[in-house]
Amino acid sequence: MRRPDQQTTTRPTTGPAPGTGTGTDADATVGPPPGKAEEQDRHPTGTGPTAEGHPAGDLTTEAVLAPYLRGQAADFLRSLRLHHEHSAPAESGGHDAAAATRALRRAARRISGSLHTFRAALDPHWADQLRAELAWLSGVLAREHAYANRLTRLVEALHQLSGPALPAARGARAAGEAAASDAQGRAALGVGAARAGALLERRLTLARTRSHSAALQALGSSRFHAVADAVALLASDVPLAPGTTGRTAEALLEPAERAEQRLLTAVAALPPADSEPYNEAQDAAWHQARLLLRLHRYAHEVVLGAAAPSLASCGHALDLHRDAVEAAAAAAAAARTPRIAPATAYALGVLHADQRHEVEAARAVFRETWPYATALTAP
Amino acid sequence: MRRPDQQTTTRPTTGPAPGTGTGTDADATVGPPPGKAEEQDRHPTGTGPTAEGHPAGDLTTEAVLAPYLRGQAADFLRSLRLHHEHSAPAESGGHDAAAATRALRRAARRISGSLHTFRAALDPHWADQLRAELAWLSGVLAREHAYANRLTRLVEALHQLSGPALPAARGARAAGEAAASDAQGRAALGVGAARAGALLERRLTLARTRSHSAALQALGSSRFHAVADAVALLASDVPLAPGTTGRTAEALLEPAERAEQRLLTAVAALPPADSEPYNEAQDAAWHQARLLLRLHRYAHEVVLGAAAPSLASCGHALDLHRDAVEAAAAAAAAARTPRIAPATAYALGVLHADQRHEVEAARAVFRETWPYATALTAP
Repeated sequence: MRRPDQQTTTRPTTGPAPGTGTGTDADATVGPPPGKAEEQDRHPTGTGPTAEGHPAGDLTTEAVLAPYLRGQAADFLRSLRLHHEHSAPAESGGHDAAAATRALRRAARRISGSLHTFRAALDPHWADQLRAELAWLSGVLAREHAYANRLTRLVEALHQLSGPALPAARGARAAGEAAASDAQGRAALGVGAARAGALLERRLTLARTRSHSAALQALGSSRFHAVADAVALLASDVPLAPGTTGRTAEALLEPAERAEQRLLTAVAALPPADSEPYNEAQDAAWHQARLLLRLHRYAHEVVLGAAAPSLASCGHALDLHRDAVEAAAAAAAAARTPRIAPATAYALGVLHADQRHEVEAARAVFRETWPYATALTAP
Repeated sequence: MRRPDQQTTTRPTTGPAPGTGTGTDADATVGPPPGKAEEQDRHPTGTGPTAEGHPAGDLTTEAVLAPYLRGQAADFLRSLRLHHEHSAPAESGGHDAAAATRALRRAARRISGSLHTFRAALDPHWADQLRAELAWLSGVLAREHAYANRLTRLVEALHQLSGPALPAARGARAAGEAAASDAQGRAALGVGAARAGALLERRLTLARTRSHSAALQALGSSRFHAVADAVALLASDVPLAPGTTGRTAEALLEPAERAEQRLLTAVAALPPADSEPYNEAQDAAWHQARLLLRLHRYAHEVVLGAAAPSLASCGHALDLHRDAVEAAAAAAAAARTPRIAPATAYALGVLHADQRHEVEAARAVFRETWPYATALTAP
């Protein structure tokens, strides 16, 4: 992330970076003063409570994007400091460290997303490099969180699937036979469910522990220090695209609209609902829609200064979709453990199917809550 | 089913049976003339095309119920003859024999249902006995059909669950990992699915063969001959309740309304939809609703001379519900086979879960197609 003609330093510099742009009347703001840190959380552009929205004529990189990026960079750095504070060996601040990690990821995603969407308004080489490195960092930090969530989800699902003991069927003669064998089925599931839960616990806890170590290692690596340096530089100085690109009015509107259009196109292309519950082939399209929705939301934050309220439910449904897809895969993978008992494999099969149906349910929620007139292929 | 003062005979008698009733101006019809057999299929009361409905004043046993029962009895006997014709060893009439069996069961259910619903208008002792024997017969005949359907259903489900090969995920980086392990998961399911299919085929074919033998044995037993005799008697002469019961106007309306009310009450008591897919404890209530719906439909046929059109979809959904419940139980039972491979057990677990979700789907269809204002507990 080393920029031409700049030394690497962790102290924010003031004024426009040399060699970037023509030195016009850019607002050379230096980032928010320390006292405005909290306001920054509420106003992602980082320019404080006066920036409720942006008149179209001000949608230039300097007026809007640069403050946003600087604000996110400051969030990143603050979260990093908090993480250091709560990760000291004497500290039992598991929660605080986790919260700091979440905030770190949150800022990293927003910087990364903006570098992608508004690349044309920025120094492209620098943007590509920083984006790649932030993607690496986000992945490393997210993995531990993902394994923890996955285990919780699967254990909870197994618990529900094992269920309370089946009450004796009364009266319905035709159901008597079926009920009796269902009770046996439920009991068999109970034995296998306990073993399946233990197996998943072992596997996912191991994976989580490894991810935790990898995250700590990453945060201490020189690669990470380079990222932190680059973000620190970003906190005071945003490398703009050479020439006049991005300095014109509405320079940001076009990329934001493209981001929205990519999202709408991807959603319109989502496979329709069908009765076939085993459609892992469709997962990729839904993952893509989730990423594009995120990019659109971030672009919305940049350009309009606030989150897009109507997309909260959709986004949440896509997150649940992703969680269920991964949980189903984890159950299937566990079933391939050599020498497990048939009852354990049976329970994992039930669990896999259950999570695939959660995948379908999440898709249905998405279709119901998708607010735009884009014709979702009718089920 | 031997009635007082009557000889057992397989030939229909004419005129009112001695000792039954007071010899009033009952329409001593002898059952439909041979040429009207086809019309009887379309007009279940058996009184021919002039009985489109019944003015309330004619809802007496003699005017309506007796012709209906005689018509169903004639259907039963005709189906029995057809079954004999197509079951000869030289005959490869599997289809025709199966069709005759279906017709036999159809008539048996209607006679049985009417004996239950309109018991107050009939000789109660006779009605109870014949109903019990018809239930035995229906059960024996239905079992082979049920096993055949169950195998078809499960094999088809396994085929869908194994699915086509998963295409390589393109582009969606985040999905790559999940897609790869899903492909492995799908492959593992493929191996296990084949074995599970083979196991289910063995078990259900064995059960079907045994049921077929049991059915043939039953149809040659003296117990069955007694049932056939009783139905033959019924074809010419319906034992009515002693005294004036059933001879008054609207004597059938009250039992029919009670049957409808029992159905409405049972449906109103059905558990609401919830997200818990493993709710075998609720199956009994749904089986009961299915039986009550059938009784209501038959009563409707008797009293109104035609099927209730608005309940076709509901009834079908309840049939599918029953099929899915039994299929799920069959998968669970197969998984308890000693020494099966984990992959086989896994596939059976997936199959069980899949069929339980079909159970939920059938319940949902029922709720959607239930036409009455009875408040189904809102999901």
